[in-house]
Amino acid sequence: MRKIEILDSTLRDGAQGESISFSVQDKLSIVQALDSFGVDYIEAGNPASNPKDIRFFEEMKRLKPKSSQICAFGSTRRKGVSVDNDEGCLALLHAGTKAISIFGKASKFHVENVIKASKEENLNMISDTIRFLKQNGRDVLFDAEHFFDGYLEDAEYAMLVIKTALNAGACVATLCDTNGGILPFDLQPILNVVIDAFPNAKIGIHCHNDSGCAVANSLMAVNCGISHVQGTFIGIGERCGNADLATIIPNLVLKTDCNLSVKDLTSLTDTVLRLYDITNLISPANRPYTGASSFAHKGGMHIDGVDKNPESFEHINPQSVGNKRRYLISEMSGKGAVINKLAAIVPDLTKDSPLVNQIVKKLKQLEFDGYQFESADASFELTVLEMLGRFKPGFNLQMYRTSGEFPSPDGESPAWAVVKIEVDGKSATTASFGNGPVNALDLALRKGLATFYPSVKNIRLTDYKVRVLSDDCTTGSKVRVLTENTDGKRVWSTTGVSTDIIAASWKALKDAIEYYFLTEPDAKKRGRKK
Amino acid sequence: MRKIEILDSTLRDGAQGESISFSVQDKLSIVQALDSFGVDYIEAGNPASNPKDIRFFEEMKRLKPKSSQICAFGSTRRKGVSVDNDEGCLALLHAGTKAISIFGKASKFHVENVIKASKEENLNMISDTIRFLKQNGRDVLFDAEHFFDGYLEDAEYAMLVIKTALNAGACVATLCDTNGGILPFDLQPILNVVIDAFPNAKIGIHCHNDSGCAVANSLMAVNCGISHVQGTFIGIGERCGNADLATIIPNLVLKTDCNLSVKDLTSLTDTVLRLYDITNLISPANRPYTGASSFAHKGGMHIDGVDKNPESFEHINPQSVGNKRRYLISEMSGKGAVINKLAAIVPDLTKDSPLVNQIVKKLKQLEFDGYQFESADASFELTVLEMLGRFKPGFNLQMYRTSGEFPSPDGESPAWAVVKIEVDGKSATTASFGNGPVNALDLALRKGLATFYPSVKNIRLTDYKVRVLSDDCTTGSKVRVLTENTDGKRVWSTTGVSTDIIAASWKALKDAIEYYFLTEPDAKKRGRKK
Repeated sequence: MRKIEILDSTLRDGAQGESISFSVQDKLSIVQALDSFGVDYIEAGNPASNPKDIRFFEEMKRLKPKSSQICAFGSTRRKGVSVDNDEGCLALLHAGTKAISIFGKASKFHVENVIKASKEENLNMISDTIRFLKQNGRDVLFDAEHFFDGYLEDAEYAMLVIKTALNAGACVATLCDTNGGILPFDLQPILNVVIDAFPNAKIGIHCHNDSGCAVANSLMAVNCGISHVQGTFIGIGERCGNADLATIIPNLVLKTDCNLSVKDLTSLTDTVLRLYDITNLISPANRPYTGASSFAHKGGMHIDGVDKNPESFEHINPQSVGNKRRYLISEMSGKGAVINKLAAIVPDLTKDSPLVNQIVKKLKQLEFDGYQFESADASFELTVLEMLGRFKPGFNLQMYRTSGEFPSPDGESPAWAVVKIEVDGKSATTASFGNGPVNALDLALRKGLATFYPSVKNIRLTDYKVRVLSDDCTTGSKVRVLTENTDGKRVWSTTGVSTDIIAASWKALKDAIEYYFLTEPDAKKRGRKK
Repeated sequence: MRKIEILDSTLRDGAQGESISFSVQDKLSIVQALDSFGVDYIEAGNPASNPKDIRFFEEMKRLKPKSSQICAFGSTRRKGVSVDNDEGCLALLHAGTKAISIFGKASKFHVENVIKASKEENLNMISDTIRFLKQNGRDVLFDAEHFFDGYLEDAEYAMLVIKTALNAGACVATLCDTNGGILPFDLQPILNVVIDAFPNAKIGIHCHNDSGCAVANSLMAVNCGISHVQGTFIGIGERCGNADLATIIPNLVLKTDCNLSVKDLTSLTDTVLRLYDITNLISPANRPYTGASSFAHKGGMHIDGVDKNPESFEHINPQSVGNKRRYLISEMSGKGAVINKLAAIVPDLTKDSPLVNQIVKKLKQLEFDGYQFESADASFELTVLEMLGRFKPGFNLQMYRTSGEFPSPDGESPAWAVVKIEVDGKSATTASFGNGPVNALDLALRKGLATFYPSVKNIRLTDYKVRVLSDDCTTGSKVRVLTENTDGKRVWSTTGVSTDIIAASWKALKDAIEYYFLTEPDAKKRGRKK
């Protein structure tokens, strides 16, 4: 059982991704999430590069991660500068971390054309920097930038760079596919050469995803004998991103006999969601292992198979990574899928109840009308309860009017809405301007509801999608609206279908609130109006 | 130079993806996009599974793809049924395609536990079906479902399934990693055995992405000697999706000596965007090769390196796949691509004209605001002509008001609109009810314009799509509207962006008509009002 170390570079390489920008608080939250999950190293940015990183390292001196080592990151000394006068190297020491990772060039082309140094000077820059940091009591992780491109250009020199770093005392030498272009069958023979040449050293791998092979290349490297894997937890990074650790880790833990510090992966999905939250990105539904769709079954035959034995269409048990199986309802799925979903909502309904057939029939009709419940669990549940007569609405709509206008009616907003709702015989009429008619209606509705139920302020709309259902494909055709909502603890999704985008949005917005009332025991507590 | 065939299963396996639902028109548009790009086979759904697929195959009988073969898809005959009485097999013939792909089980576990047949009966089901379809003049592609899991369980039986299919006359036997769980180093030795056993047969690979290795596994398979690769163009499919062909194809064409039907990849990025548009999904910025960020450089040192030599941080030339380099902190990006597009519209504009820089800058701003001109050529052309002062509008908007109401204002329609336009000093005010506010506005506008220009009656809106741009993802966020229009001879597309769906739709509807006026010489002939 070979030990494999994991280094997460979300805070350093991940921050190079387009639209990624971390505050100091974001960085501290990420350290906490990664430490709590249990990666070995957290590469935390370059303490010389900007004031935010400098402040972050100050804050870090007070925190004590329980399972991860924090790593400051920087480059070797500059050419022609003595290492103990090099600002970057001094900043690395000042960051105060026990572990420091530095990168140096392993490609002759880059040495000569980008940093414009001699090949010997580059080797000296590497060994001087490692020795200096070691003498100051640090563990030094060396990243051989452009190693694979460099190897293909001048293998002897690339190997000499690794040898130099190891001889100078680096605790690990990591082979970087900096441009992310290498394919697994081209990587394999190079790795075999390196592992043969340095049988007793710790060798690492650092892949980018420009060929779509970062995960596989990292796994191939482990299989060839490396013992240190770098990536970013959710795969963010410059261009196409870095190797996705949330995919590599379960592959290694669940499918190989490697020994990782982390053994229990049940917090994997939550950690992924937490990182998406902090980085303000949406988690792709089709992420391997940790996506909302990763264990979602749609085809009738697949649902039937999984029902007989989950292994028939699942490569692992979803619970082992904190995810869950879902059966999607679609025109391709049979009755079995619907029954499975119903069982979760109304456990007292037996498979043979005549109600089940009625519900299945009505759901088919709704699907034919353009509803699609697979991404709208909350609307599905409300629809079923309504069919069974088990749903009592928290409010009723009496009227709304939305107006979209040019020129702007108030010189600013292009739209306004008035809405009148009724709760237990009492009415409330509210109005709001908005960025568009749906936004105005949404704001007016929440304003009206808040007078009855102050708790609606806890509900936040986090996603709103519109799909034109292309029967006749024009402005007269049906639209389907999907929403995603949260109260900070849970996430639920709703849908509405109509030829009228306002009516479809109303249905989805209404469901979002009714579902909250249904599932949150204290949600229907009344405000002053009662 | 070994020939590698590409089979795209977007319409079949892709349709199994969560939230994917294709209309018949969507399917025809996808066939057109894939055929125009040049994949060898388009696997187009199961003609027995639902009414939509049945109608699609009827429509397909009239179309003649120029470079792709359409493939109907189904299973082997059912157990205990004679193949010439099997409904599914007869539906396959009825679909009328020359090529038919069928799947059969290659795993003993599945044969015995899921379909509950004997091992011999399963082999008979496979050979009967292939022989029957062959006798009816079809080329049969055989998919060995669960091949890898089956091989690990009972290698002899899995190999026997392949042998049976090839002996019965299948033109290719494809090894499927149905559960998507295999890792590249586990796949390699199995592939070597299969290739050795059937040195003269055409063997294919079909991977799913549950381990994040679908692209790499497909490439490993090619490297081991297979010659037929299945996937979906943008990687959609059940659970975590299928092998992403838009990543596999450039890897094979640009980085190996394989021979593919498609040689020129400059339309790759546009084809990817077109498919995302049709499926109404957002193209991830970090997609390998074809993402908006794939060649986006952020780090100062990286930008410096790319400036000195693009190869320093780019694995390929972005233009070779129709993508472009971007510098995220500089205004300098993408000028070449814009110049290419400009040259087609205003050939008299030279590369060094100061106007070009101005236009590039303004287009960047529009893109930043959410515009995306890839799927809206007409709006792009109008925007450029407007910037150059070469556009004279056919009409001006003076005001509109749209009203979306509950209960319905006329007891029938949920919305109405009033619009006032002006043409050469003369005004027209018209009103219309509609299925929704945008439809009402569209109808009122056309009614008003027809009093000036009877020819607008020739314009038909053929597609209308709305996408919420994920800035804050709620009803207050921006929407992008795309339209497609035809006058029976040509097709053109327009776009509009706003926080207000009415305003965004107005812009796109207006552009659709102005572009018709611009490009159709007789379009502006006046009616009686002049």
